[in-house]
Amino acid sequence: MIDSTTKIAYLGPEASFTYLAAKGMFESEKLQPFPTIPDCLEAVADGRVDLAVVPIENTLEGSVPLTLDYLFHEVNVYIVAELVSKIQQQLLVHPNNANKWEQIEAVYSHPHALAQCHKYLYYRFSQVPLHSYTSTSAAAKLVAENPERNIAAIANASAAQKYGLTIAQSNIHDFHFNHTRFFVISRENVRIDKSTKVDTGKTTVMLTLPSDRSGALHQVLSVFAWRQLNLSKIESRPLKTALGDYFFNIDVLADENEPMMKGAMEELAALGCTVKTLGTYYTYETPS
Amino acid sequence: MIDSTTKIAYLGPEASFTYLAAKGMFESEKLQPFPTIPDCLEAVADGRVDLAVVPIENTLEGSVPLTLDYLFHEVNVYIVAELVSKIQQQLLVHPNNANKWEQIEAVYSHPHALAQCHKYLYYRFSQVPLHSYTSTSAAAKLVAENPERNIAAIANASAAQKYGLTIAQSNIHDFHFNHTRFFVISRENVRIDKSTKVDTGKTTVMLTLPSDRSGALHQVLSVFAWRQLNLSKIESRPLKTALGDYFFNIDVLADENEPMMKGAMEELAALGCTVKTLGTYYTYETPS
Repeated sequence: MIDSTTKIAYLGPEASFTYLAAKGMFESEKLQPFPTIPDCLEAVADGRVDLAVVPIENTLEGSVPLTLDYLFHEVNVYIVAELVSKIQQQLLVHPNNANKWEQIEAVYSHPHALAQCHKYLYYRFSQVPLHSYTSTSAAAKLVAENPERNIAAIANASAAQKYGLTIAQSNIHDFHFNHTRFFVISRENVRIDKSTKVDTGKTTVMLTLPSDRSGALHQVLSVFAWRQLNLSKIESRPLKTALGDYFFNIDVLADENEPMMKGAMEELAALGCTVKTLGTYYTYETPS
Repeated sequence: MIDSTTKIAYLGPEASFTYLAAKGMFESEKLQPFPTIPDCLEAVADGRVDLAVVPIENTLEGSVPLTLDYLFHEVNVYIVAELVSKIQQQLLVHPNNANKWEQIEAVYSHPHALAQCHKYLYYRFSQVPLHSYTSTSAAAKLVAENPERNIAAIANASAAQKYGLTIAQSNIHDFHFNHTRFFVISRENVRIDKSTKVDTGKTTVMLTLPSDRSGALHQVLSVFAWRQLNLSKIESRPLKTALGDYFFNIDVLADENEPMMKGAMEELAALGCTVKTLGTYYTYETPS
């Protein structure tokens, strides 16, 4: 499945958290940055790359809506592995300003990173304006290119190294248990099966309810509950038709080839659900 | 409940979508802009204002995580009304550049607004860089203050009017059914009950499951299902402790004072759930 010609898209730029996760799993010369999540997924769907690595969920911020929605609405692809990576946020300044970082005039980062450091920023820099930027890495680049401005970026240690910045304060994220899940996506329903996997497999199912009648979701969950199929996650996302219309993303702790799972899928279809299965995959921890 | 001295916080700046929704419900001289959602909610919690209006969910983007999480983790307040407002996005340029908007060099807006116009931007301006900004209104201000740059903002028509911009293309959002829900928040468990309400009341309940055993969520939903209490929404949000730990936000189409709802709440507690009820409230449509 992975050989010398394999091409792997990831949500760039280089030194992004997605890059760090992908680099922990694949050789870095196979990796190609793409500017947005839809670009990564379209590149897999139309065959320009073999695999794509995209973020799906963070412990603090929750799901990445664009990934979930694009997987449901726009492309027909499969999940072949899940990567879990610890996220550590650093306050980065230009080395010229290393002595006066306590007087920074602005902070730049991705909105998720700003949110992950919300309390730190609120108590430490309550008067300092926060600016949303397209990525943590791009914010680090901005700081590197403007040494005359006493500004800071929030990004990872790899970005500090890449852009020659000083870590003024380390690990400034509010919650210690800050992890992000990434999906490795393919056109084919296969799986990456290595000895370093940390679980026995999980299946992602996306479905819409048969109708908006009372208890429809309860009925759907009954399909899994009486079979003792445990769910590690259930989440609703808007169908983009009207407020109150949702699809559900369900992660089941089971293999799609197990008889119980096959029975559950058949029963969901019989109930009138539309079901999209994204395959069974294993989880890997990647260094950060 | 609302008199001549009432002070109402809203997620600013002026001309934000939250401002438009709040202005449809309350006299504009009572309204005070606050820079962030936590600022709005803290202002209610500590008594600096009587009410706050904050966004909770958009048809396309889904829930506003910061609002849900802050209501669960940080403050003890109640929902006293829900406002539903149609969202229409416009491409705005400086009047000096009205003839050459097809050659714009950059687009600025809030990440949600950029996402809501994702396909329009992808097909119409695929080579043009997109810049995240703190709000649609702040992006409009940036365009107004830089007439020498051929740049555009995505914002509402009210922002065009406030900052003297030209609407180059109107209604550029990808999906027609684009609405946002806003909560009106108070320290007291009361409700705004006017003849213009469009529903018979809804109750928001936030809860954690008794334990991570198989079928716990199914058991919780059974509490509502056998009583024929219909849910208009269920959503999981990370507990910020570890990946896989969630709290659930459930909207029940019932009044918290009904015997069936009281019974359901008692049964949830008996099951070992921790339950936080944010009160019963009515929905109002506000012009956009």
